[in-house]
Amino acid sequence: MLAQYIAKHKTPFDAYMMSLIEGEAIPNQLKESMLYSLSVGGKRLRPILLFAVLDTLGLEATCGYQTASALEMIHTYSLIHDDLPAMDDDDLRRGKPTNHKVFGEATAILAGDSLLTHAFKVICSDEGLSLQQRLELVSMLSMAAGPMGMVAGQMLDMEAETKPITLEQLKQIHVNKTGRLIEFSIVAAAVIAQASEETIQLLRQFAGHVGLAFQIKDDILDVEGKGDLIGKDVGSDMENGKSTYVSLTSLDEAKVMLNEEIEAALAILEELPYETSLLAAITDYVKERQA
Amino acid sequence: MLAQYIAKHKTPFDAYMMSLIEGEAIPNQLKESMLYSLSVGGKRLRPILLFAVLDTLGLEATCGYQTASALEMIHTYSLIHDDLPAMDDDDLRRGKPTNHKVFGEATAILAGDSLLTHAFKVICSDEGLSLQQRLELVSMLSMAAGPMGMVAGQMLDMEAETKPITLEQLKQIHVNKTGRLIEFSIVAAAVIAQASEETIQLLRQFAGHVGLAFQIKDDILDVEGKGDLIGKDVGSDMENGKSTYVSLTSLDEAKVMLNEEIEAALAILEELPYETSLLAAITDYVKERQA
Repeated sequence: MLAQYIAKHKTPFDAYMMSLIEGEAIPNQLKESMLYSLSVGGKRLRPILLFAVLDTLGLEATCGYQTASALEMIHTYSLIHDDLPAMDDDDLRRGKPTNHKVFGEATAILAGDSLLTHAFKVICSDEGLSLQQRLELVSMLSMAAGPMGMVAGQMLDMEAETKPITLEQLKQIHVNKTGRLIEFSIVAAAVIAQASEETIQLLRQFAGHVGLAFQIKDDILDVEGKGDLIGKDVGSDMENGKSTYVSLTSLDEAKVMLNEEIEAALAILEELPYETSLLAAITDYVKERQA
Repeated sequence: MLAQYIAKHKTPFDAYMMSLIEGEAIPNQLKESMLYSLSVGGKRLRPILLFAVLDTLGLEATCGYQTASALEMIHTYSLIHDDLPAMDDDDLRRGKPTNHKVFGEATAILAGDSLLTHAFKVICSDEGLSLQQRLELVSMLSMAAGPMGMVAGQMLDMEAETKPITLEQLKQIHVNKTGRLIEFSIVAAAVIAQASEETIQLLRQFAGHVGLAFQIKDDILDVEGKGDLIGKDVGSDMENGKSTYVSLTSLDEAKVMLNEEIEAALAILEELPYETSLLAAITDYVKERQA
């Protein structure tokens, strides 16, 4: 069911998102650089989550295309800047050369800045939403992506490279670094669908568990995964001395924690007064995925 | 009059702007890095322009404190990223070490990203404005600062370093690189004051002339200015082989162009049905400033 759902939405959504940049008067090299990183694969986990929540709440996925595009632009900008020599210094991302390897560092910095800024313009232009909805989404997204959210996570992650951290601190890093945008994808859909405050609260909790599960699974895949599938060397986190759920506990304990988060997420879905089999399928995918 | 006006607003505005970051839960090093660049002097030209237009239209400057803070955050982020080794590689800015010299490159990149993202949150939180005003300001700012605005200018500026350009191309670079944020400072005030469409159009034209005048004067100061006042070496643009209004014409012709832009700006002020002596004083300052 999930594979079909993804197959149905990925191509039209990707085309739509690209059109939001292709159609604009942006200098050529800059535009190419933005489109390059946006188009380099990616699971589109965040957009798919947003669409699935819309679907669950009775709305068409297309109602969320602009918000999902903004979200994916911000996710992509964070990867471009993360890969820079001054940051993680990565040459490959999802098996392809990183943005700065193709376009040079200066253009990569500007492409990241551009995607981040353009994301807010995209939400403002969404005429399918009320002014209040748009403003709420801009506000939520700037909080989730900024120095109290995703960037805080990147900063803490960087600082953790040079000092030992606790499991609780690792969790805080991931809640910010990846959790906040995953939470946005889910809560944004609820805002678009004008869901009740109670539903939003439940979905927020669901998002917290799915976000953590996603990260724990990432750390497990770093040890157990197949390099050609995950797009980086197996064991690279270990080699870099990076703290992970596996390194701070054990492979077995990490799997127990993964299971706990998945079970908690599924339990919340049962509390929702909606048909949630699609969200349950995504939750299972987060646990079972091989890449 | 202008000096008094600036003296009256600079200190309370600076304190207000800093409080929008100091009061937030941001990791320490990241927060310090953001505050460092925000506090390193600067003429606050854009906020002062915004306040002066509000004043002209009959509103208190404080009505624009949040929007002006957002604007200055975005201006500051652009300077931090511009100074990076991969970009202009500057060690000094306004006579002080640039952000990456103090905090390191990675933190500087993240501080820039943070200021950019936080700016949108700041506008969203401005409860003195209607939802529609806030959304319009977010939309205008994202357009002015993004890949169709300021970042386009940075990209074109970078490309111009390796090839000869025409005076028209130089103008296009500056219209985007510095003009769009100056325009925002002026038009944003009109949006806050709910000015008529006619007034907004006139102010937009005024902004265009002031923005160009500002840049031409910069290029003149690079040749004629005093290094300790302008905070960089006199003649540094020339030495770097950078195209400027002076290098593409002559010092005398640049001064003629400066005068033309100033006269055009002042002429528009006379068309406005408001008392515009404060805006005229700022226009004169743009022409006469020594730094």
